[in-house]
Amino acid sequence: MQTVSENRAFGGTQGVYTHTSAVCGCDMTFGLFLPAEAKDGPVPVLWYLSGLTCTHENAMVKAGAQAWAADAGIALVFPDTSPRGDDVADDDAYDLGKGAGFYVNATQAPWGSHFKMWDYIAEELPALLGEQFAIDLDRQGITGHSMGGHGALTLAMGLPGRFRSVSAFAPIANPTASDWGRKQLSAYLGDDESVWAKHDATLQMQATGFDGPVLIDQGSEDQFLELLKPECLAEAMMARRQEGSFRMQRGYDHSYFFVSTFIPEHIDFHAEALYS
Amino acid sequence: MQTVSENRAFGGTQGVYTHTSAVCGCDMTFGLFLPAEAKDGPVPVLWYLSGLTCTHENAMVKAGAQAWAADAGIALVFPDTSPRGDDVADDDAYDLGKGAGFYVNATQAPWGSHFKMWDYIAEELPALLGEQFAIDLDRQGITGHSMGGHGALTLAMGLPGRFRSVSAFAPIANPTASDWGRKQLSAYLGDDESVWAKHDATLQMQATGFDGPVLIDQGSEDQFLELLKPECLAEAMMARRQEGSFRMQRGYDHSYFFVSTFIPEHIDFHAEALYS
Repeated sequence: MQTVSENRAFGGTQGVYTHTSAVCGCDMTFGLFLPAEAKDGPVPVLWYLSGLTCTHENAMVKAGAQAWAADAGIALVFPDTSPRGDDVADDDAYDLGKGAGFYVNATQAPWGSHFKMWDYIAEELPALLGEQFAIDLDRQGITGHSMGGHGALTLAMGLPGRFRSVSAFAPIANPTASDWGRKQLSAYLGDDESVWAKHDATLQMQATGFDGPVLIDQGSEDQFLELLKPECLAEAMMARRQEGSFRMQRGYDHSYFFVSTFIPEHIDFHAEALYS
Repeated sequence: MQTVSENRAFGGTQGVYTHTSAVCGCDMTFGLFLPAEAKDGPVPVLWYLSGLTCTHENAMVKAGAQAWAADAGIALVFPDTSPRGDDVADDDAYDLGKGAGFYVNATQAPWGSHFKMWDYIAEELPALLGEQFAIDLDRQGITGHSMGGHGALTLAMGLPGRFRSVSAFAPIANPTASDWGRKQLSAYLGDDESVWAKHDATLQMQATGFDGPVLIDQGSEDQFLELLKPECLAEAMMARRQEGSFRMQRGYDHSYFFVSTFIPEHIDFHAEALYS
């Protein structure tokens, strides 16, 4: 692991690091904010999974999350959204290939050799964080935006006991029924739709739900609402009697201004679970 | 109008009043909490509609709402849930007849002569309040529990521009598809289901929605979940992109302990709309 940069921020440190990922077969970069409390021992961690076209950097510089994480004494990790490098397959479309890993383990050519974002987020990166930093892996929460909201929800439900709390901003909520989903799940996983189910938050909510609190925010003026399908996840949450809140925020769109407006409430939500 | 009782409470006054209702053709009783600010001029008002078997009294003495309304400077009105008196029709079942008005104008015998709870709440009682008390009818919000949540939502959507905000605790959310609804709507309104639609919050949400914020709380251990159908309303809210929050509160049941736990947040929610 190599340090790309470390900046003092909100009494703690905002770092960027690269490491060779065995899982993805390439070098990967991530951002990590450690609050001041990490000097004294392991702190809880909140994962922030980003959306289509993003790298580790977008949320790190635009979501305004560090101020609130510092107040709460929580670390933030900002992973990349796909494998990277010249020998990694890509596609001309912005929503397939690099920047569009969809948090799955691809099995289909040409994606199967590098696109293992599920295992990267579920196994390799947390192990690295636990080894290298003052992170308490017994206290993890997860959130994300758009494709990252999809990732946060499916990882939280797919790894029972791992995360104490999950939230999402404008998640891709029902990808098996959306053009943001069917194309990618087909390309990465093949045409057997039964394999797709664990990567669909609505289907996972119907099947198992989440053993902890859930918070979803969605903007009413989001330009991608027809692709995101919030109503499907809301119905599934309430039909399951899933502990949690689904909020439709009037006038907000899909941008980081939406995320930065509500990130304080999300961090408070996770802090309550991580410090209880 | 006659004063039944007035008690000093939280710096204001909790009153109980009776009046002859021309709409219901009987004497009706209601509770009204006026905060201290009402001495100096009209204050905003929050309607609290109660559930099956309740009178004006249950929420008034069990919901713990006055403390928070006093802080917010908001009046609370607690209407009864049906017409009353020896010449008013009734049924042996707890969920039809007295204590079970369902906030409709009945058209069918034997109910049609007295059961006009829609007009009572929509027209007669607000006019009386505006004449007799320091209530600002330009600033009204509405909430309710169970059958009263159904009433709050359907009145709010059925009277555009009347209420600035609506909330509900464990509302009967889709009565046209429930045994809490089909029996009563059939008895009160007859078998033409097209007439029922304005008395179904899910159908009204699909048809028009509400021009203001909506807050719904539902307990995950509510013993009546199969009758309440929260998932139908949640789906309809998010499909419409209705401004608002739908919250599933883990471990809470259908009792007033659920209501009294979350009434402070509901009053804050209405206060924000009524004082903006």
